[in-house]
Amino acid sequence: MSADIAEQPAGFARLLEDGPSAAIAEVAAKVAGKAPRSVLFVGRGTSDHAALYGAYLAEIRLGLPVASASPSAITLYGARPDLTGTLVVGVSQSGGSPDLAGVLNVARETGALTLAITNNPASPLAQAAELSIDVAAGHERAVAATKTYTAELLALLMLVEGIRAGGALPADERAALEKLPELAAGVLADRSAEELAQRYRFASSLVTTGRGYAYPTAREAALKLMETSYLPALAFSGADLLHGPLAMADPDVPVLAVVGEGPGGRSMRDVVTRLGERRADVVTIGAADIPGASARLAVPAVDERYSPLLDILPLQKLALALSLARGEDPDAPRGLKKVTTTL
Amino acid sequence: MSADIAEQPAGFARLLEDGPSAAIAEVAAKVAGKAPRSVLFVGRGTSDHAALYGAYLAEIRLGLPVASASPSAITLYGARPDLTGTLVVGVSQSGGSPDLAGVLNVARETGALTLAITNNPASPLAQAAELSIDVAAGHERAVAATKTYTAELLALLMLVEGIRAGGALPADERAALEKLPELAAGVLADRSAEELAQRYRFASSLVTTGRGYAYPTAREAALKLMETSYLPALAFSGADLLHGPLAMADPDVPVLAVVGEGPGGRSMRDVVTRLGERRADVVTIGAADIPGASARLAVPAVDERYSPLLDILPLQKLALALSLARGEDPDAPRGLKKVTTTL
Repeated sequence: MSADIAEQPAGFARLLEDGPSAAIAEVAAKVAGKAPRSVLFVGRGTSDHAALYGAYLAEIRLGLPVASASPSAITLYGARPDLTGTLVVGVSQSGGSPDLAGVLNVARETGALTLAITNNPASPLAQAAELSIDVAAGHERAVAATKTYTAELLALLMLVEGIRAGGALPADERAALEKLPELAAGVLADRSAEELAQRYRFASSLVTTGRGYAYPTAREAALKLMETSYLPALAFSGADLLHGPLAMADPDVPVLAVVGEGPGGRSMRDVVTRLGERRADVVTIGAADIPGASARLAVPAVDERYSPLLDILPLQKLALALSLARGEDPDAPRGLKKVTTTL
Repeated sequence: MSADIAEQPAGFARLLEDGPSAAIAEVAAKVAGKAPRSVLFVGRGTSDHAALYGAYLAEIRLGLPVASASPSAITLYGARPDLTGTLVVGVSQSGGSPDLAGVLNVARETGALTLAITNNPASPLAQAAELSIDVAAGHERAVAATKTYTAELLALLMLVEGIRAGGALPADERAALEKLPELAAGVLADRSAEELAQRYRFASSLVTTGRGYAYPTAREAALKLMETSYLPALAFSGADLLHGPLAMADPDVPVLAVVGEGPGGRSMRDVVTRLGERRADVVTIGAADIPGASARLAVPAVDERYSPLLDILPLQKLALALSLARGEDPDAPRGLKKVTTTL
């Protein structure tokens, strides 16, 4: 897991090379040519969090309504929604989950333009789709996905910005993205996450929260902590947290709040204040320095759209360090397989 | 909370009376006349779980693609998706959440047909929408929503089946629904949930799971437990549980699995087996009798579409009883207000 985490800056750089960039631009041009009226994402686990990031991008950057279908409606209940004019994107590191390939097959039959985003271009998901993007993250050794997640995020970002531009990325977007490998390396070099892990050695549960672009990060951080440390970690959007789960917040339930500098981050300030009133122990992750937080995992300020690619890095390191501190084996989480075959 | 819970059979009966039924049929006829190409649901907290049930119904029974937009994309990031031909449904017991009214206002401007489902027909949400359904649940005293949740479920069911039929419910559907008040009263009379509460007196966290129509029930049960007992409760679709969180399952993390008799329930059997292999303590809720479960909260077998209206009842009672057993006040969860005003 440590090696997978360390490879993420190189993974960003690889996707930004001419070959992979051109391949994504070609897919983006084909999608732009079809001018879809809506986008539907399907994914499971970590890849579902990448899909959620894609959903925010498509809504905000492309102005498209986003559907987030339950695969079970199609695979278990036989739903056959009319998907003419819809771009259906399946996200999966292995591309091996039969329910996602099933959804893409049905989507193709019902008039959708289908696209697979996977780390395995020979997978059933990639075969089922009309278009395919290889995130080229290389073999992932640990069961807990890290480098395939951030590669999926970057591929989705390049895809959406490419669709917006009609194919290739605009020069200023490309220039901004090319800074990411170095920024990511800087975040990974910081040891604050390893130090913070001691704080949660005896925690019995944990809450993560974020809003807007930061919400997928909160979800993914919770999943990593559950997979590697068996720590019940509850992820809430900042808005949903105020609708019930806030009752749970007390000094014994630590909160990890992802708070950047954009609109999502600004809307989190009130949430952090409310948590403070409940004397919750809040640690913030991201570019914003919020008064009242017990500690902070600082991440460089970038456009809020790019933050998910950096903010997750210290959280992956936190999950790994906490797993080791609790005497667990982060490379072999009990009960899990790399490819999950739900129907 | 106890009184609110007890009123649910009467709430079902009230919505099925001629006046409220005709009002919903009229809305259904108007929606059917516009023949929307897709449906978008927005809700927060408990009402978001009702909206999720509506999403399964719309996908499976109407064959419509369902979007589940993040309000923040519209309210924080200014996204203006083209919603021409989309039915946008806002679900909220109070109808007072400004972000939902904001989404409906934007949706109306961008060509959507808008519909509010609330327990307050004079609320800002109902005012913002072109069409409105009053779930007529009466004043809800407890902060934790119970009777407004099941009233929202029944209103959504009557709406979707009404749209399918072009207005009024078909006679067989109506006859089936008219059995619900008595079935609900029978479920509420059963004291198994109160007895089961003792089992979780000292639990430090809990997992809920279900698939298809039962997934909203798993989500809502987790929220009720968090709101009233401050017990970290993690809800997963049966499929997602196998993708990572299964690592957390061990004999110390109790699992509540909602397992009915339809396609969703059948697909849960493998999940329960996998949990058994990890020696998890599984209690099932619903019509299916699964070997290997430690205990079961039995609920009468009905069409799986109707199960969510009954399966949640023993889980509400469990949350209430557990809250009391742990010395908490279920009527006044700390830190919560009845109307939450996120922007």
